[in-house]
Amino acid sequence: MADLSEKRLSSEPAFSGKLVKVYLEMWEQAGGQQVTREIIRHPGAVAMIPLLPNGDVMLVEQFRAAAGRVMLEIPAGTLEPGEDPRAAAVRELQEEIGYKPGKLEKLGGEYAAPGYTSEYIHLFVATELEESRLQQDDDEQIDVMTLPLSEALRRIEQGEIEDSKTIIALLWIARRLGR
Amino acid sequence: MADLSEKRLSSEPAFSGKLVKVYLEMWEQAGGQQVTREIIRHPGAVAMIPLLPNGDVMLVEQFRAAAGRVMLEIPAGTLEPGEDPRAAAVRELQEEIGYKPGKLEKLGGEYAAPGYTSEYIHLFVATELEESRLQQDDDEQIDVMTLPLSEALRRIEQGEIEDSKTIIALLWIARRLGR
Repeated sequence: MADLSEKRLSSEPAFSGKLVKVYLEMWEQAGGQQVTREIIRHPGAVAMIPLLPNGDVMLVEQFRAAAGRVMLEIPAGTLEPGEDPRAAAVRELQEEIGYKPGKLEKLGGEYAAPGYTSEYIHLFVATELEESRLQQDDDEQIDVMTLPLSEALRRIEQGEIEDSKTIIALLWIARRLGR
Repeated sequence: MADLSEKRLSSEPAFSGKLVKVYLEMWEQAGGQQVTREIIRHPGAVAMIPLLPNGDVMLVEQFRAAAGRVMLEIPAGTLEPGEDPRAAAVRELQEEIGYKPGKLEKLGGEYAAPGYTSEYIHLFVATELEESRLQQDDDEQIDVMTLPLSEALRRIEQGEIEDSKTIIALLWIARRLGR
């Protein structure tokens, strides 16, 4: 098996927005070949599947400019610099659905698009939910929707749920619950 | 229910790399509030789960600079401008694993990170595979690994497979096959 590892030689900021920061990086492959990579360096994110005792899940609807349409997703948010993912998960749940989890279990994690962004999403299952609302970010307009897990899974099959972290969380929890 | 739709007022290129293109866009919400969005406009991609008659899947290992490590993923690739997703899937399978599918079935699709990138990934199940190799891109070094589906699913549970499109394709095909 070939040595696939690479070593970073340099990293220069090429674009620095409020959310998106792009770096031009030079990497050296094991054979000595040098390649240029355009990498978005991202602080990471959290996403939570809020699961009710009856098996329903709580999703959020919001307009996504990148997709040009309203999408149905699990609650999620970007990590503040240095923020603990569990603390971020509790904060985002209160901001987006107005509930605080009594129990927050790690489901797993995923790189959204490792070809060009370092964004790693920590996935949690949130249960024992209690009402507790925090103010949303100003530029976020969100509707909350509660659905049976079976209906959410049907919407994946029908192509109505197309957000990657949401598909992962729903399929994963369905597998764990044997649904 | 609130009107969540938004209307694009303007879009200006802010960074234009070989792979990553960032636009600064002004969007107007239904209530009249104007918000600025940083959006990566991406041509889209294809990802294929190559499934053998015995239930094994073929995965590719490659170094991902954004993650800083070697990752195990399903074969995938970016669409050329105007390219048909099915044609891209057939091309990428020949480039990455050296096989051509006799049958290519649409599994679904997903937005990788709709908060900031328009990347939409078309997912396919590739079966009836026949040897047929095309030259890989110069800067791609890839190893092919064939695994039982059960072992691939175990690696998701263990956090060893962390690529979003790969997790989706594996969990989805496992659900379809009742595994």
